[in-house]
Amino acid sequence: MQKPLAVLNKAINQQVIVELKGKRGYRGTLDGYDPHMNLVLKNAEEIHEDKVVKKIESTIVRGDNVIYISP
Amino acid sequence: MQKPLAVLNKAINQQVIVELKGKRGYRGTLDGYDPHMNLVLKNAEEIHEDKVVKKIESTIVRGDNVIYISP
Amino acid sequence: MQKPLAVLNKAINQQVIVELKGKRGYRGTLDGYDPHMNLVLKNAEEIHEDKVVKKIESTIVRGDNVIYISP
Amino acid sequence: MQKPLAVLNKAINQQVIVELKGKRGYRGTLDGYDPHMNLVLKNAEEIHEDKVVKKIESTIVRGDNVIYISP
Amino acid sequence: MQKPLAVLNKAINQQVIVELKGKRGYRGTLDGYDPHMNLVLKNAEEIHEDKVVKKIESTIVRGDNVIYISP
Amino acid sequence: MQKPLAVLNKAINQQVIVELKGKRGYRGTLDGYDPHMNLVLKNAEEIHEDKVVKKIESTIVRGDNVIYISP
Amino acid sequence: MQKPLAVLNKAINQQVIVELKGKRGYRGTLDGYDPHMNLVLKNAEEIHEDKVVKKIESTIVRGDNVIYISP
Repeated sequence: MQKPLAVLNKAINQQVIVELKGKRGYRGTLDGYDPHMNLVLKNAEEIHEDKVVKKIESTIVRGDNVIYISP
Repeated sequence: MQKPLAVLNKAINQQVIVELKGKRGYRGTLDGYDPHMNLVLKNAEEIHEDKVVKKIESTIVRGDNVIYISP
Repeated sequence: MQKPLAVLNKAINQQVIVELKGKRGYRGTLDGYDPHMNLVLKNAEEIHEDKVVKKIESTIVRGDNVIYISP
Repeated sequence: MQKPLAVLNKAINQQVIVELKGKRGYRGTLDGYDPHMNLVLKNAEEIHEDKVVKKIESTIVRGDNVIYISP
Repeated sequence: MQKPLAVLNKAINQQVIVELKGKRGYRGTLDGYDPHMNLVLKNAEEIHEDKVVKKIESTIVRGDNVIYISP
Repeated sequence: MQKPLAVLNKAINQQVIVELKGKRGYRGTLDGYDPHMNLVLKNAEEIHEDKVVKKIESTIVRGDNVIYISP
Repeated sequence: MQKPLAVLNKAINQQVIVELKGKRGYRGTLDGYDPHMNLVLKNAEEIHEDKVVKKIESTIVRGDNVIYISP
């Protein structure tokens, strides 16, 4: 048994895929999070329908948009 | 009478089906949860209209997307 | 005068109909609930436009999807 | 000046009309409520575009679906 | 400087226009409110695209539907 | 560094533009606010696609509809 | 590991891109924030589908509209 936030914590400095509401996704290095699942991603790519549409050096994603995070 | 979170707790390490808003579903092993129904799934499959569209080793699903969880 | 949660409590082990947002409904035995109206249903049937589309042995429904529950 | 919940309280055992999001309405006897405006209705009729579409002996309506309640 | 709830309080027993999400509006006498902006209206008219579609003697409007209230 | 509510406070008695969800906007004098960003506007104009569609002497806007406020 | 709000704090007085729900974006200098991710932007440009549609000297963005903030 692992709590969701503990799994997030282990994923720090690792590559994650973040799927957001509205068909938007990110792939990047998880640099931080908080209990609302607000996330900090580094060296991220924004993905729309399997294509990279933007490269973003650093971004703060607001947690209420998150569907899932895959370490 | 069983509280919803107690039923979730018994489902740890078992196969569950998770139905999300937006016609998205997952089948996988429940590895964790918290009181918001944030979930950790292992060896999961993403399902869209009864077809497996993706395999995911491990994923954190944010609870506010969940419609139901079937152990 | 009966509080909504008291009525839910009396419906434990009884057949209920649960109507969810998004035209989804369930019929099953109420096995549990919590103050958020998260529900546990046993021997449930998922109903879509008056037709049974799935049988589910046990399911946890997240309360924020619920429109009404009829004991 | 009357607080909304005080008006609800006076409507106990009286006929009310409840309008929900998504063009759904109920007419029935108010049997209970709580501070979230979760409601218990007895001898209720579900109304869709001014037509009675279902009769329901007793139902618990989750408050976050409510637009208005008319005693 | 006037706090929003103080302005609501001064509007008690006065005619107000209430605009709700979903193109629904009410005109009536404000009979009560609470901090969630749940409202009690008396002698109200429901308005849809500038036409009166219903007359309602008394109604409790749930605050989360409100866009604005004009005293 | 200025906190959002401090900026709102400085805008009291000044002209502001308020953009709401659902393509609705207001221009008027900010007469009050609270921590939920509920607002009181005076001598306001409702704007829809850059046209003034209504003049409103005084209005209380519920904060959860607000996208941005420009002093 | 950096908390999301700590990253926001470091971005004060720097250029940020803010993406909102509903295909709306802003580019401007971050002048303030609070724990809800309400933001103050200075010398901002509103962007719609990669085009600048408006220039705004100062604006308060309500946090619940935010998808991401890129310093």
